[in-house]
Amino acid sequence: MLYSDKILRTPSSFIRNILKVASAEDVISFAGGLPNPISFPIDGLQKAINEAIEVHGPKLFQYSTTEGYLPLRQYIADKYNTNFGLAIEPEDILITTGSQQALELISQVLVNKGEGIIVEEPGYLGALQAFSLTEPTFYPVQLTEEGLNVEQLAQTLYENPCIKFIYTVPNFHNPTGITYTRENREAIYEVVKKFDVVLIEDDPYGDLRWNGEKLPYIGAGRLENSVILGSFSKIVTPGFRIGYMITKNKELLNHVNTAKQATDLHTNIFSQIVIHDYLVKNDLTTHITKITDLYQQQARSMIQAMEKYFPPTITYTKPDGGMFIWVTLEEGVSALELFNKAMEAKVAFVPGDPFYTNKSNVNTLRLNYTNSSPEVIEEGIKRLGKILYEIPSKQLI
Amino acid sequence: MLYSDKILRTPSSFIRNILKVASAEDVISFAGGLPNPISFPIDGLQKAINEAIEVHGPKLFQYSTTEGYLPLRQYIADKYNTNFGLAIEPEDILITTGSQQALELISQVLVNKGEGIIVEEPGYLGALQAFSLTEPTFYPVQLTEEGLNVEQLAQTLYENPCIKFIYTVPNFHNPTGITYTRENREAIYEVVKKFDVVLIEDDPYGDLRWNGEKLPYIGAGRLENSVILGSFSKIVTPGFRIGYMITKNKELLNHVNTAKQATDLHTNIFSQIVIHDYLVKNDLTTHITKITDLYQQQARSMIQAMEKYFPPTITYTKPDGGMFIWVTLEEGVSALELFNKAMEAKVAFVPGDPFYTNKSNVNTLRLNYTNSSPEVIEEGIKRLGKILYEIPSKQLI
Repeated sequence: MLYSDKILRTPSSFIRNILKVASAEDVISFAGGLPNPISFPIDGLQKAINEAIEVHGPKLFQYSTTEGYLPLRQYIADKYNTNFGLAIEPEDILITTGSQQALELISQVLVNKGEGIIVEEPGYLGALQAFSLTEPTFYPVQLTEEGLNVEQLAQTLYENPCIKFIYTVPNFHNPTGITYTRENREAIYEVVKKFDVVLIEDDPYGDLRWNGEKLPYIGAGRLENSVILGSFSKIVTPGFRIGYMITKNKELLNHVNTAKQATDLHTNIFSQIVIHDYLVKNDLTTHITKITDLYQQQARSMIQAMEKYFPPTITYTKPDGGMFIWVTLEEGVSALELFNKAMEAKVAFVPGDPFYTNKSNVNTLRLNYTNSSPEVIEEGIKRLGKILYEIPSKQLI
Repeated sequence: MLYSDKILRTPSSFIRNILKVASAEDVISFAGGLPNPISFPIDGLQKAINEAIEVHGPKLFQYSTTEGYLPLRQYIADKYNTNFGLAIEPEDILITTGSQQALELISQVLVNKGEGIIVEEPGYLGALQAFSLTEPTFYPVQLTEEGLNVEQLAQTLYENPCIKFIYTVPNFHNPTGITYTRENREAIYEVVKKFDVVLIEDDPYGDLRWNGEKLPYIGAGRLENSVILGSFSKIVTPGFRIGYMITKNKELLNHVNTAKQATDLHTNIFSQIVIHDYLVKNDLTTHITKITDLYQQQARSMIQAMEKYFPPTITYTKPDGGMFIWVTLEEGVSALELFNKAMEAKVAFVPGDPFYTNKSNVNTLRLNYTNSSPEVIEEGIKRLGKILYEIPSKQLI
């Protein structure tokens, strides 16, 4: 066999195929996960580009260091220290090619074939793909409305000393939109501190909050093996592929740095400098408010439409931020079958299946609202509701 | 142990440490591997950026496809078809985050732990690092003035059915500057076609030829598992991290695409579109001639200085392009020890050690000439020559 075991076991994107059928012009699509273009400050970036070329010249176009542009790392450190009362230094930060890259690198650095990773159930598909390249054993822990099932987390850790890290998305989780409560975070901390494992808090959506107060991280500032992942993809631009990893564990960061060097030498330096110049010369808070005002309005439209058009037996999350709503159909109803019916009515979403490591024909699905107007959202949900009322559950299994 | 076996076995950059000491202001450094900033067409790129923002708007800043920007893939296909008489389609091309990323992805897709990779001896350190993440067994094959030692290549392939791929840099090789001869390429083809292995021809320097004629690739257009890697890092900008992989093997490309998606979703789309717009609106040949005129002059200065100042027992390659010269000291002389003496005289180079998978205290070293003026090159070589004359070989062992 020419190919490696790990690539044959890596799921290629189920979502990619769905997005293909969902991208037809006459389809109302809630399937994507793209930020709204309103989040790209194009004029500000154009200005930053012109100034950066004038000020930095060839430096923008030359090879650069693996760890990343120091002023950008300083900006990130300041932001987290101000917002969360942490004591992060630029030396605790590695700039990555999107935070997606950090997922693969951390997995490479920690996991031998067969060793364990705790993932949320359901969880971010992109993380499952990134981790698969190290051929781990996945230990799913149930995600509840409050956050991780702490009892199951503790039991899983006790029973499986092979577990190397825990992967979480505590704010406006993908795919569910759930935010871990303060109490749940505290309870997770009390469990995790007893084990020699890494806790990853992947936080691409944290800034997109329109309701409630920012919550502290679970491990940052108090767990030795705490890792925060962040990104500029949802608040400035995903096209530049600029993410970052923060940890006070110097040995871990050093290993990830070595792996990154082996993987792509360093992150696009032009984009790093331009993003930094944009950030220091513009009011990010005002920009983010513009995004969250829109997303809040879109999320509200979707929830109001679901209250109006969906059978009352169907439940869904009500996010305080982020980009997704998670819908739970009646027990035994297959979201995948619903998807096929919905496509006939020209509405698309992502059936829950790819967000689980070992389940299929689940009764859950993900809705994205960030790229449709309130009118389109109402029409799409109305069509879905019609199908849900018309078709008896058993026909959907 | 918290960390994986593979990261503990991945060499962190020996060169990085050397570059640190070599970067002091008063040191004449031949240690780097950076292209000269003359190779960055800054004005052309600035124009391309402004036009791209005007024409493409939000598309430059949004998420994009894993395979890469179609018009850029079309441009690359056209270039190879014109220059080498190949029949490459855009569908045969994947855009990568620098060609370095392709090295890691291919290795992930092909190699299970312990399986074999044939590498040149000496070979590109960055490739050895990228491959190490899959815990392979390295089978070094000697690089001669003509190219690979074909007899050793054949024997290694016959004796080790676990070998998955062969990694070569046939044009202006890093670290040696050697270009495989036409006859050597033909002989390699005759051997490799008998085996179910992938042949990688990594070609970042191929465009930088100032002497002699372009030679055909070894496998492209005739070996089923032929892979060409290319890059814009040496002719436009390394800061953008834009490389590519070309293969007619659709299954292989598909697997690499899946691995890339897991690794960083897609390559910076802003940079892909800008490079494409630059390429179609400017005369690349004229730009490349500007670079090769400079490099030829620098290489000639270095060779003339070595003829003048080095002991006649010392040999070195005389490249027809690229960025490096490879020096072989007398038998038994340690280049690492020479490095220490040279640093006292404020001259830096890279001792050969890191370019071998299983040798140390070698008598070879790499010189880079692309970032020094002819005067500085002469002064640096003069200082090295002085040391080489003063110190008897045995003291250097």
